[in-house]
Amino acid sequence: MQLLKDRILSQGEIIGNDIIKVDMFLNHQIDVELLCEIGKEFKRLFASQNINKILTIEASGIGIACITAQYFSVPVVFAKKGIHRNVGNDIYTGEVFSFTKNTNTQIGISKKYINSEDHILIIDDFLANGAAVKGLIGICKQAGATVEGIGICIEKGFQPGGKELREAGYHLESLAIINSIDDGVITFG
Amino acid sequence: MQLLKDRILSQGEIIGNDIIKVDMFLNHQIDVELLCEIGKEFKRLFASQNINKILTIEASGIGIACITAQYFSVPVVFAKKGIHRNVGNDIYTGEVFSFTKNTNTQIGISKKYINSEDHILIIDDFLANGAAVKGLIGICKQAGATVEGIGICIEKGFQPGGKELREAGYHLESLAIINSIDDGVITFG
Repeated sequence: MQLLKDRILSQGEIIGNDIIKVDMFLNHQIDVELLCEIGKEFKRLFASQNINKILTIEASGIGIACITAQYFSVPVVFAKKGIHRNVGNDIYTGEVFSFTKNTNTQIGISKKYINSEDHILIIDDFLANGAAVKGLIGICKQAGATVEGIGICIEKGFQPGGKELREAGYHLESLAIINSIDDGVITFG
Repeated sequence: MQLLKDRILSQGEIIGNDIIKVDMFLNHQIDVELLCEIGKEFKRLFASQNINKILTIEASGIGIACITAQYFSVPVVFAKKGIHRNVGNDIYTGEVFSFTKNTNTQIGISKKYINSEDHILIIDDFLANGAAVKGLIGICKQAGATVEGIGICIEKGFQPGGKELREAGYHLESLAIINSIDDGVITFG
C-alpha cells in the first residue's frame, strides 16, 4: 500500500537496523484518515473471505481493528494483556513473548466473545516474529474458531513471523513489508 | 443517549452496587456500529467547539476515540500506560490512581504530539472518580494545550469525578449517567 509506505518513509523513526517507530501516525498519535484507507484496503484484500469478527490485541491494534471493522460491518474483540494464568474457566489464554522487552505477557479473551462459529480476521499493527499473532491464533484454536485471514499494517520481512505464518497456510496480507533497514535506509519488499 | 442506555440495561453485567461491566459491546467485544452512533453524538454535543485533536488513554478508550475522530476529522493521541517516572525530558507524564485495583499507574504522552496550540477533546469509556481524565488534563496543562471538552460514554453519577470536573468549569458530556445500582436495578440520571 503506497500511502502507508510513503508515510513510513516520511514520518517513521528509524532506530538502529531493526526498529522503526511509527508513533507519529499509528502507535501513539493516530492518523484516523490514514486508518480509514488502511481499513478499506483490508476489506479489498479479504473481500472473498466470510468474516464475522475482527480479533486484535491491546493497545495499538484496537484503533486499526475498529476502523477496519466498519468496512466489514462486524464487531471487534481485543485480547487483554496481563491476564493471570489462573484466571478461571471462562477465559481462553495465551502467552506472547516480546523480543523487544524480553518478557512474556499473558493474553486472554473471554469465552463469551469467541466460539466455534466465528470466522476471524486477525488485525495488528506490526508483524515481526509473529508472537502476538500466534498468541491470537492459539486462542482461536482453543475456541474452535476459523482464522480466515491475518491483516498486518507493517511486516518486518527480515524477521521470521511472516514466512512462518504463510508456510503454515494462513492468508496473510501485510500492507507494507520492510525487507531491510540499513544505515537509515528502508527497503520495502 | 437512549441507544447506549438501552444497551447498558440489556447487556451490562452488574457486580454488586457499584460495578457495571460492559464487556459485551464496549470494553472487550466492541460493537463498532454502536461506536459510530456514539461518535456522531459526541460530534453533535461538541459541534460548537474548535477541536483539533482527540486525547484518550489506552486501552479501552482507543476504539471510541478513533471512531469519534472520524466525525471531527482530527487525529487521536493516546496516553500510554506504564511509563517510567524518569523517562526523560521528551514526555509529559501523569499519575492515575485506580480505585478498582488500588494502584497508581504512570501515564505519558510524547511532547511531539501535544502542544500549546492544541484544542483538545478528551474521550474515555468510563468516568467514576475521574482519575484518568484528571491525569489527561494534567498533561494538557503541562503542554499548555486547551481542554475544549470531555466526552464520556458512561458516567457513574454516584461517584465524584463528574461533579468535580463540572464544578471546575469543564464542558463535560456523558452519554449515559448511572445514578445508582441498587439490587441489580440501574437508575439513570
